[in-house]
Amino acid sequence: MTTVAPTGQTLSPTTPDELERILASAHEAAGPFGRLLPSDRARVLDAIADALEADSEELVALAAAETNLGTERLTGELKRTAFQMRLFGDVLRDGDFLDVRIDHEDLTWPSGVPRPDTRRTKIPVGPVLVFSASNFPFAFSVAGGDTASALAAGNPVIVKAHSGHPQLSARTADVVIQACLSAGAPAGVFGLIHGTQAGSDALKDYRIKAAGFTGSIPGGRALMNIAMSRPDPIPFYGELGSNNPVFVTPAAAEARGQSIAEGYVASFTMGAGQFCVKPGMLFVPTGSGMLEKLRNAALPAGARMLNDRIREGYVENLQRLSSHPNVDVLVQGLAPFSTSPSPILLATKSAHVLESPRELEAECFGPTSLVVEYDDLSQLVPLAETFEGQLTATIHGEDDCPVQELVRVLSEKAGRVLWNQWPTGVAVTYAQHHGGPYPASTAAATTSVGTSAIDRFLRPVAYQGFPQHLLPVELQEENPLGVPQMINGRR
Amino acid sequence: MTTVAPTGQTLSPTTPDELERILASAHEAAGPFGRLLPSDRARVLDAIADALEADSEELVALAAAETNLGTERLTGELKRTAFQMRLFGDVLRDGDFLDVRIDHEDLTWPSGVPRPDTRRTKIPVGPVLVFSASNFPFAFSVAGGDTASALAAGNPVIVKAHSGHPQLSARTADVVIQACLSAGAPAGVFGLIHGTQAGSDALKDYRIKAAGFTGSIPGGRALMNIAMSRPDPIPFYGELGSNNPVFVTPAAAEARGQSIAEGYVASFTMGAGQFCVKPGMLFVPTGSGMLEKLRNAALPAGARMLNDRIREGYVENLQRLSSHPNVDVLVQGLAPFSTSPSPILLATKSAHVLESPRELEAECFGPTSLVVEYDDLSQLVPLAETFEGQLTATIHGEDDCPVQELVRVLSEKAGRVLWNQWPTGVAVTYAQHHGGPYPASTAAATTSVGTSAIDRFLRPVAYQGFPQHLLPVELQEENPLGVPQMINGRR
Repeated sequence: MTTVAPTGQTLSPTTPDELERILASAHEAAGPFGRLLPSDRARVLDAIADALEADSEELVALAAAETNLGTERLTGELKRTAFQMRLFGDVLRDGDFLDVRIDHEDLTWPSGVPRPDTRRTKIPVGPVLVFSASNFPFAFSVAGGDTASALAAGNPVIVKAHSGHPQLSARTADVVIQACLSAGAPAGVFGLIHGTQAGSDALKDYRIKAAGFTGSIPGGRALMNIAMSRPDPIPFYGELGSNNPVFVTPAAAEARGQSIAEGYVASFTMGAGQFCVKPGMLFVPTGSGMLEKLRNAALPAGARMLNDRIREGYVENLQRLSSHPNVDVLVQGLAPFSTSPSPILLATKSAHVLESPRELEAECFGPTSLVVEYDDLSQLVPLAETFEGQLTATIHGEDDCPVQELVRVLSEKAGRVLWNQWPTGVAVTYAQHHGGPYPASTAAATTSVGTSAIDRFLRPVAYQGFPQHLLPVELQEENPLGVPQMINGRR
Repeated sequence: MTTVAPTGQTLSPTTPDELERILASAHEAAGPFGRLLPSDRARVLDAIADALEADSEELVALAAAETNLGTERLTGELKRTAFQMRLFGDVLRDGDFLDVRIDHEDLTWPSGVPRPDTRRTKIPVGPVLVFSASNFPFAFSVAGGDTASALAAGNPVIVKAHSGHPQLSARTADVVIQACLSAGAPAGVFGLIHGTQAGSDALKDYRIKAAGFTGSIPGGRALMNIAMSRPDPIPFYGELGSNNPVFVTPAAAEARGQSIAEGYVASFTMGAGQFCVKPGMLFVPTGSGMLEKLRNAALPAGARMLNDRIREGYVENLQRLSSHPNVDVLVQGLAPFSTSPSPILLATKSAHVLESPRELEAECFGPTSLVVEYDDLSQLVPLAETFEGQLTATIHGEDDCPVQELVRVLSEKAGRVLWNQWPTGVAVTYAQHHGGPYPASTAAATTSVGTSAIDRFLRPVAYQGFPQHLLPVELQEENPLGVPQMINGRR
């Protein structure tokens, strides 16, 4: 099996011998890397950020050649990727991520048995395998969020390169490895592998202790099943699929119909619709004029998609959806099924969605979206209830809309709920949550974006009755690192 | 299939119709219960605690009849169980469990894209299925830690009763249900089911959103596989098995050999050795006199075990372990294989453990333990490295022992590491961690004991761009509940 890059260059899949070497190095590096002080790991992350920015031009050019994404978008994405590394550096210097808890001995603890001196911190889980995504060649790939959070947590990382951008992956890996070494991380802290077989073999290997994944539902589920079938199952953090419904209330359609229509078109066509948070459905009130506004919307020109496999999948799904007996074409560009697919808007009615939710709510990854007309505000709650787990759900409303119940139902369906904004553009922040009930995520309690992403690659350990000098520094009474500590239940 | 209680009474397994009714009620109760203010849920937990204590005598008598555990131990366990409910009430009133994070809008956020106003809280996952354990008929059963933490998180709970104490389970469920209703919880917030088939059917049901389990490795793994094979996999929090090795350094053996021997015997024979944290192995220095002290130890009399199935499993495992060619009997009571098995201590040497770790390190649930002689302190690290995931690992040492490396390796193997104490008696506290790498736990990042256990049954949701009046109260700027909030990355 050989991976062919669009640049014409080929990259060989990782051989079993190479894989063994990479796994052994990661295993070897786990102890020394995990024992670095958080502030020393922060310097490693900073060095990676600096190196990515230093090589920005070359990396962006490689990415543009392999992914058909524009230079401007890629430059911004690289900046975000470097920022993310540095933000995890800040997380490490702050120390809150350790969730340190100290219980002093308490002979009067009212449980009936005395409370021993118990101190809990978090330690790295061990080498992490990251399956990178095609649609964010920087932010969800070799040096992306999974890698940043797993390294921050103190784990060696092995990335399975996405076949969509192998040259960029190899070059980025070089940059990361050099930066790690220059900042004092042990060799083996980062490795890159190519090929489906190597990825699956690595996932089965006892030295891999957790995995991250961003991609399709079938691909993610297959890998999750491998992780769960190991003699020792490991956590599998997969971000799979989402259709990101948007609900426009009658009041909002009346007040801001035109700007909502424009915002929607910009959001679902951005990056040729190749975002996991692309709004795939828009619910609009019948007779509100929204349909007409959308029919007259100026759709952008078609753009080449990430790669042929993505385009073929898109065309197949689009053909199925657009030929559904209850789905009409609302507006389309010149060539929605071409090699540079023009955006296309489809339309249906709420009754049809209630009849066939699984067919009409399935994700169609690419520049399309489905507009659904509904008759009455009261239909939105039952419509919302038909959805499977989502990364996002959005309401466009006015402040006096009676939408409390809709907000509640959507919060049960999605990891992030938005008000009068668009789901594309996932900010890397402290409060961000990028996840949601299955199939949005295989681990709904965790996020793959934002500072909490580090939690996935840590594990608590409690130390009972230890003398100070044998405790990890963050658990010591003098708290030399100055980390936040919960003491006897109080922060 | 009929469950026969040792009292002679029978309890029928839950029929499919009954199960459907219980699942539907739990599903129905999820919304109203999840929307209660945390302080109102705290009152429900307090009411359960009060009710358990009010009916203490009757419950303890039932438990004693069904489990062969003594009244004193059971009275203490019930007290601990009531305490645990109230402690989760405190957790709810404190609000730290929501891990509220508020990012204010920041147009200068250095990621390259502006940061929107984003506010994250945690919501209940939905109805939780709890498989209760046999060895703690209160603390890990109907009203035990999984139930307390799942209710605290705002979820309805369905408990699959353990066949070892069906009458007690039914009676405890009555107490819990009445207390819930009296404190204003919706009907359906608690249900009890009997029988293996009902348990497995419930685990497959789409209305169940997470499961907790305490029990054996094969039983837990089988249930985990069911949870992972659902069309929508759900989190399965299983606490499976552990052998809890204890390492005695030469200095400790010399300084406190007699008290260590006595502490060990008390710990491994407590409750007829039927604790998941029973010390199943003790590593002692050759020639330190520890073996002689143990050989002369006064073992307590045999005691009836929890039930016949447990005893049969114990006898089978003990026969296998004691007939291993490299294992000798060190000391035993009158009748180690009887219906009230006398405690029995076995012995081997470290070289044999290094040769056959899986055979000699397997858990043997009951009143036995394996003493391992080692020659040199330097052997302890390689011995520690042979272990699979453990709930606990213990060192008995003196303050000047060079054991840093041993502490490090054991923290990679276990969820709780102890110094000069014994692992039995798991305190319910803020810093407690009862879990560990597989097979100690199926979810090593979580604990089933201590206040963090609530995290298992919550899921974060981020709200982006919302007006104040549509936000959950804990996310509002005025913070009417007074919960701790991380604001712009600072607590």
